[in-house]
Amino acid sequence: MAYAEIEYEVQDGIATVTLNRPGKMNAYTFTMRNEMLDVFDRIDADDAVRAVVVTGAGRAFCAGADLSGGGGTFDKEKSKDMFAGEDDVLEDGTPRDGGGTVALRIARCLKPVIGAFNGAAVGVGVTMTLPMDVRLASEKAKFGFVFARRGIVTEAASSWFLPRLVGIAQAMEWAATGRVFDAQEALAGRLVSRVYAPDELLPAAYALAREIADNTSAVSVATIRRLMWSGLSKPSPWDAHAADSRLMAELGGAADAVEGVTSFLEKRPAAFPMRVSEDLPANTPDWPVR
Amino acid sequence: MAYAEIEYEVQDGIATVTLNRPGKMNAYTFTMRNEMLDVFDRIDADDAVRAVVVTGAGRAFCAGADLSGGGGTFDKEKSKDMFAGEDDVLEDGTPRDGGGTVALRIARCLKPVIGAFNGAAVGVGVTMTLPMDVRLASEKAKFGFVFARRGIVTEAASSWFLPRLVGIAQAMEWAATGRVFDAQEALAGRLVSRVYAPDELLPAAYALAREIADNTSAVSVATIRRLMWSGLSKPSPWDAHAADSRLMAELGGAADAVEGVTSFLEKRPAAFPMRVSEDLPANTPDWPVR
Amino acid sequence: MAYAEIEYEVQDGIATVTLNRPGKMNAYTFTMRNEMLDVFDRIDADDAVRAVVVTGAGRAFCAGADLSGGGGTFDKEKSKDMFAGEDDVLEDGTPRDGGGTVALRIARCLKPVIGAFNGAAVGVGVTMTLPMDVRLASEKAKFGFVFARRGIVTEAASSWFLPRLVGIAQAMEWAATGRVFDAQEALAGRLVSRVYAPDELLPAAYALAREIADNTSAVSVATIRRLMWSGLSKPSPWDAHAADSRLMAELGGAADAVEGVTSFLEKRPAAFPMRVSEDLPANTPDWPVR
Repeated sequence: MAYAEIEYEVQDGIATVTLNRPGKMNAYTFTMRNEMLDVFDRIDADDAVRAVVVTGAGRAFCAGADLSGGGGTFDKEKSKDMFAGEDDVLEDGTPRDGGGTVALRIARCLKPVIGAFNGAAVGVGVTMTLPMDVRLASEKAKFGFVFARRGIVTEAASSWFLPRLVGIAQAMEWAATGRVFDAQEALAGRLVSRVYAPDELLPAAYALAREIADNTSAVSVATIRRLMWSGLSKPSPWDAHAADSRLMAELGGAADAVEGVTSFLEKRPAAFPMRVSEDLPANTPDWPVR
Repeated sequence: MAYAEIEYEVQDGIATVTLNRPGKMNAYTFTMRNEMLDVFDRIDADDAVRAVVVTGAGRAFCAGADLSGGGGTFDKEKSKDMFAGEDDVLEDGTPRDGGGTVALRIARCLKPVIGAFNGAAVGVGVTMTLPMDVRLASEKAKFGFVFARRGIVTEAASSWFLPRLVGIAQAMEWAATGRVFDAQEALAGRLVSRVYAPDELLPAAYALAREIADNTSAVSVATIRRLMWSGLSKPSPWDAHAADSRLMAELGGAADAVEGVTSFLEKRPAAFPMRVSEDLPANTPDWPVR
Repeated sequence: MAYAEIEYEVQDGIATVTLNRPGKMNAYTFTMRNEMLDVFDRIDADDAVRAVVVTGAGRAFCAGADLSGGGGTFDKEKSKDMFAGEDDVLEDGTPRDGGGTVALRIARCLKPVIGAFNGAAVGVGVTMTLPMDVRLASEKAKFGFVFARRGIVTEAASSWFLPRLVGIAQAMEWAATGRVFDAQEALAGRLVSRVYAPDELLPAAYALAREIADNTSAVSVATIRRLMWSGLSKPSPWDAHAADSRLMAELGGAADAVEGVTSFLEKRPAAFPMRVSEDLPANTPDWPVR
């Protein structure tokens, strides 16, 4: 599949996904949605990808919905940009929120995902990134949960992700005002983990991806990612304990664990033999985020 | 209903609720509870109210339970101050905790609620405020989850709200010591969002309320408030996604969304036509916080 | 029971548990696990214990699994160190993760638990401490969720506890990199509450334990601890409200509440008569963390 609105590249174990409509501030469309769903399937299937960096072309990260259609932008009868396809509906026939389909896809990705916010991330441009593992920002980044200023609601399952990321007080302040805020406010509120000078952003994102790719078992990281995110959904620590026990029983005697301990004792870099495409534990959680 | 222990005023779209027993440090009573329940019903029903500020008269915010009844203060046989009315009991006949009835009422309010802590907020004086959206404090504010020093337990559903607001480690340190702490400790622990000089507190609270009232759709804000708080209760992001999809389908084509996009494209302030009293989406969450 | 790999001491109402294999960096074994389970039973049963401090002998807190068995360390067929005993399995016969049994035991302890990290806490050496109430660290402490570097997964129910303590972004960054990090990074990421010079760590831990022991009702603290931690598991604040109501009905008229209010009004230290071993409310939550 060739992409029209994103770019995709893999180098040295790290995939880069670039939102790529720079003339439109990388505004989100139905096409971009479809391409995001497709690229995360490729990422999961490709053992050459150990970590993912998502960024934007030009001066924006993603300006949110493409409003060029005017007042009918969010109307399910007049535009298909904000919804999933006609064949992808809730049980009662309601069209699925399109940003949510991207967010839920990212949430169950088998590789860690790093958001590198080079510029403005507004509306679905920020909500679809909440299930990324780490968000890093340029000093020039801006953010806005502007839904209340457009007459709609916070979407992309952000009412689930955002209060768990930044706390309900910060989530409500941003969502009720619809304010656009800068990188320092995002950092203070824990929406992003660190802020960088513009030309240090991508190097920092790649350094973090490298740290993962160079030191860890791909199967461990994939399993841990599912375990940790689904841990937010588990009713009690007992449920996590049962999942841990099954995974430790499966992986504790497998080749990566032998190599992990042996390489540590021999004080040499590990060369983990197992592959995500073939060796994922049978008990790897696939949490209910279809 | 005229109020004896609170004051209520609405001006320019902003309601102010003032706990008003200044001679008693605004200590909490059964009367104050009933008036708080009533005033939040008025707030929800009045389209002229876009945001709410809650503060205290005199030098305290709320000193907690009125202990003037002595050792029997918390005894359900000897005092009615700490419990809901006789006709408001759990299924097994247990009297409901009174502070909890206030907290649960605030949690489902349709307007954003800002706590402005002018002075001491202790016991139920702080726990009943945890479901407010944002807490702002004067440098003179003090806080205390003093229940363990009185021989009782943390109430007002604070075992649900507090660890989600400040993390379980901070919640347990405050609850296990019963310590009274100052505004700076509250800020560092994320109980409050910002600290102000005493005479800058109310202006800051009103400025935040203004930012909401002047820029957003009332129906969006009401729906988002329910969506975001109930998001904390949802088992998985899929549940949030289903709720989002139904609300986007309902609101995306409605008058406020048309005005929200059109006014943005025309670079003019929005004039949202929809009203909370009449136009709330059928799928607005009414989460189980009776 | 005499202990081989931990030390246990009670003084002035405060218990100290010291991980005690200093020649092995206090590395975790099956024996240490069994002794930890036993000591927390003693702590719960002994009314002389009002709070617990857990620390390490020598320069480490706990280096994690004892890797001296080599590549088979985590293999359930080759080592019993990482699993619960043969008679302690999941319903499907899977051996339970041993670190998880310690974590779940600490989670339901009736006394507050303070972790005092004197040095390195790595792997299970840190995950088993996540259900402690407060973590304090020496400047010399180090931490690492190194599981992905060993080819296994985050265990000890840490996929449940860690994202709730530090947020999912910080949890994933530490778990996906497997990085070892210092006390300042732990503080910034909210894994620990405060950092001290090495010789100020234990005094600070004891001062916090003292603050609890000297000022509070033991029954209140025990009940609050169960209420607050289990609050993280409750679907909605209504569930917390029901639990609160039952506990307030039981404790509000009991001897500690009478003494708590009376001593406050008389401006004298409280002398709470009730005992955890005898007077715990019937409705004290015993949440599902077997």
